[in-house]
Amino acid sequence: MTIRYPNGKKYIPTSATNKHPVMKHDAYRNRGQTLEDELNDSNAFYLSRNIAVIHKKPVPIQVVKVNYPNRSAAVITEAYYRTPSTTDYNGVWNGKYIDFEAKETKNKTSFPLQNLHVHQVEHMKNVYEQQGIPFLIIRFSTLNRYFLLPYETMIEKWDRMNEGGRKSITLQEFEDEAIEMETGFMPTIDYLKGLASFIGKEG
Amino acid sequence: MTIRYPNGKKYIPTSATNKHPVMKHDAYRNRGQTLEDELNDSNAFYLSRNIAVIHKKPVPIQVVKVNYPNRSAAVITEAYYRTPSTTDYNGVWNGKYIDFEAKETKNKTSFPLQNLHVHQVEHMKNVYEQQGIPFLIIRFSTLNRYFLLPYETMIEKWDRMNEGGRKSITLQEFEDEAIEMETGFMPTIDYLKGLASFIGKEG
Repeated sequence: MTIRYPNGKKYIPTSATNKHPVMKHDAYRNRGQTLEDELNDSNAFYLSRNIAVIHKKPVPIQVVKVNYPNRSAAVITEAYYRTPSTTDYNGVWNGKYIDFEAKETKNKTSFPLQNLHVHQVEHMKNVYEQQGIPFLIIRFSTLNRYFLLPYETMIEKWDRMNEGGRKSITLQEFEDEAIEMETGFMPTIDYLKGLASFIGKEG
Repeated sequence: MTIRYPNGKKYIPTSATNKHPVMKHDAYRNRGQTLEDELNDSNAFYLSRNIAVIHKKPVPIQVVKVNYPNRSAAVITEAYYRTPSTTDYNGVWNGKYIDFEAKETKNKTSFPLQNLHVHQVEHMKNVYEQQGIPFLIIRFSTLNRYFLLPYETMIEKWDRMNEGGRKSITLQEFEDEAIEMETGFMPTIDYLKGLASFIGKEG
């Protein structure tokens, strides 16, 4: 039996209206999802399967004024965004310390290095020296292509820029030196699989 | 020559006015500093000496309204504190994933377990299963005593509570089963030394 609401519209479950039909190789399935959404979904999947414990850090905010309208609630009424001093994501995967930054670009031919902050690169360097595993995840959003860029390659291009070279990493360089990842259903982006293939290559 | 400012006061460097004289065993030297301040100082020291890369995570805040008075500034005008889903501190130390929560208590005889949230304990369990190193740092602020409590001991007391036992960990239990840490100058709390002594015991 169909439920009819006062306005005469037929009841349709939210899940049926909000989403495209699920098709395994539908490149448009994740349309509208940000890279952050996709990575949060992937991390929730890894956690639920006991594969890894990786979280996005909260956005740093400087709180200036707080009102307490009653004992149980606090309302922040003046606050400012602060510049993050580290990368956005970190955690542990099978005893390994994982640390990465995720960036999207609409550019179709290269990733502009101005998307990275000096302190983030510095942080990744420190992590690398402590034998953690830093890397970047880059989404070319117009092309719907995803790459995992190991720290070693990233720092090479960063140093090239600082020595007066080009201020970006070309798509061709990503194709040659990064790990391309396909999107899937669970997880949305299997970046640990990408990372495992890279670590495997190293050993 | 002494610099004199318009109000006639002698110039005194800030560092000389704000601090007590440095005495190695002065238990009151850190009076007024919160445990968070002390740990942030310790982490800054570890970072500066390339010993470890450990940061406090930002406090999670749900932003509801933002005003943009001009292009370069954003003012948050309505926001709320969210409950953290993980511990406050994590990072990497010589290839090891470090993850801990820090708590202060004014209680002189025990640490009440209600200071920990279920989801934080769950997070530490997940970290432990991924071969990370979770632990607690507890400051008995009235006694000015600091302990590092390994996850294994913490979860034993947590389970005891859930089986109907006592809802706290006694100071005696800390003395017997945790690692007591002294405060010093650089770093303020050398918790990695405490941790090393524990890991050494294990191996």
